[in-house]
Amino acid sequence: MKQHTVERKIMWGDLDALGIVFYPRYSEWIDAGAHLFFEAIDLNQDQLWKARHILFGLVENGCRYFKPGRYQQLIRIVTGIEALTTKTIILKHRIVSAADDQLMVEGTEKRICLDVSDPESFRAQDIPADIFERLKYALGE
Amino acid sequence: MKQHTVERKIMWGDLDALGIVFYPRYSEWIDAGAHLFFEAIDLNQDQLWKARHILFGLVENGCRYFKPGRYQQLIRIVTGIEALTTKTIILKHRIVSAADDQLMVEGTEKRICLDVSDPESFRAQDIPADIFERLKYALGE
Amino acid sequence: MKQHTVERKIMWGDLDALGIVFYPRYSEWIDAGAHLFFEAIDLNQDQLWKARHILFGLVENGCRYFKPGRYQQLIRIVTGIEALTTKTIILKHRIVSAADDQLMVEGTEKRICLDVSDPESFRAQDIPADIFERLKYALGE
Amino acid sequence: MKQHTVERKIMWGDLDALGIVFYPRYSEWIDAGAHLFFEAIDLNQDQLWKARHILFGLVENGCRYFKPGRYQQLIRIVTGIEALTTKTIILKHRIVSAADDQLMVEGTEKRICLDVSDPESFRAQDIPADIFERLKYALGE
Repeated sequence: MKQHTVERKIMWGDLDALGIVFYPRYSEWIDAGAHLFFEAIDLNQDQLWKARHILFGLVENGCRYFKPGRYQQLIRIVTGIEALTTKTIILKHRIVSAADDQLMVEGTEKRICLDVSDPESFRAQDIPADIFERLKYALGE
Repeated sequence: MKQHTVERKIMWGDLDALGIVFYPRYSEWIDAGAHLFFEAIDLNQDQLWKARHILFGLVENGCRYFKPGRYQQLIRIVTGIEALTTKTIILKHRIVSAADDQLMVEGTEKRICLDVSDPESFRAQDIPADIFERLKYALGE
Repeated sequence: MKQHTVERKIMWGDLDALGIVFYPRYSEWIDAGAHLFFEAIDLNQDQLWKARHILFGLVENGCRYFKPGRYQQLIRIVTGIEALTTKTIILKHRIVSAADDQLMVEGTEKRICLDVSDPESFRAQDIPADIFERLKYALGE
Repeated sequence: MKQHTVERKIMWGDLDALGIVFYPRYSEWIDAGAHLFFEAIDLNQDQLWKARHILFGLVENGCRYFKPGRYQQLIRIVTGIEALTTKTIILKHRIVSAADDQLMVEGTEKRICLDVSDPESFRAQDIPADIFERLKYALGE
């Protein structure tokens, strides 16, 4: 399975009043991880959108939180594909502490292939064959 | 089951490049819904924290997205308790369009009772009896 | 001078590790205040954009911070026009504590009238006459 | 003058409906730039806070916006000290496009030395001599 890894440092503005990461920040980093993963397998979302009116939109997500993130901690977001169907992909994201590789957060995103040519109404569509092949290759099948 | 409802208007800064709500914003509103719910049942998180060193921390959450939110749309976040155990509660959040009551997002949060007296290391603990009673009443049992 | 006022409650996710509002949140509320102000004087930004390819984009902003915002504090954002030129407007925003009307933050935004018909390259343009009249009226001249 | 530079990539979640960076994001990156700058001159804010109950809190800030940031654009935030008084420092931040070094945003933060030993009431104080020396050295005087 192909994976994409990005590092980031937890900043002051990511913390809540307890001094730990406010959880919606993890969703922001996971969404960014998804975009970087797509780009790494040559499916830049902006190009897909502008050239082919396709985007992978979120239909479901979930996270489990194991260890709180702290100020200036260096973390890694590791993203890969867990499953692939005609219309959908499931991305799996692991956020680990860079210092000791301990798991902090585990997240899943189910994304569906959308035709966004009408900005007022997006429609689910089958993943086009060439894109499907690329995703299948990234899944490692 | 006791529920708490809060309204908000979707703002420009909540949107992504497609003109629909960027999904981590929903988590922010759901977290806010949880805090307002706790306050509505007389369990203000700030007072609990400062007076008794207790907070309900997130261990798991999930969302399903049914309809995209748009600029200046008025929405309602409706929060209630779905389940209660010795140490944990599960909150259920429904985000609906105020105009037609259609479901836009459904979210779940599993929160655990934490002893936060040591800021460097939080520990799970049993929900104290008086708080448990209040939660049980709000659950409607 | 016409003013628009919106209330909001400071939430857990708005706080930093000191337990006070993380300052970029104020910019988010000020931007929202600007959009609500435009709507109140019948210049909804989304309609302007879609019908006439015009938006008032930010070229400069500034804030002064007088009192920190705290958990669940109710605040008011009061927005009005301070100045108007051929191409620009200056909006003034006052954030006050709803309990005692004390000033917490004062913000200024200089916005310029943009032709956004080419999404790759926005251009400054004169404010169209009908819009200018509406802004002038809101300024109270 | 000592400067600290950090790179980041503009992500999907940083964009507004026009496909350009929503401006409060720049404040988040500028605040992070300030924290990284303090750390680079051995004044880690978290350690200062916990060991000496001191933090440099924001009293005023301002930004000018020259070019909009776009999806996946690589940017650099360059931070240095512009001025230093008994109680305050002024930080200057330049955000440039990494590709061509063009200026996108210029930001200023005025920060004041705060005694935060009472979490309910912060007080301005003179910058302690050892910290002042370090800041003066970073200013290049």
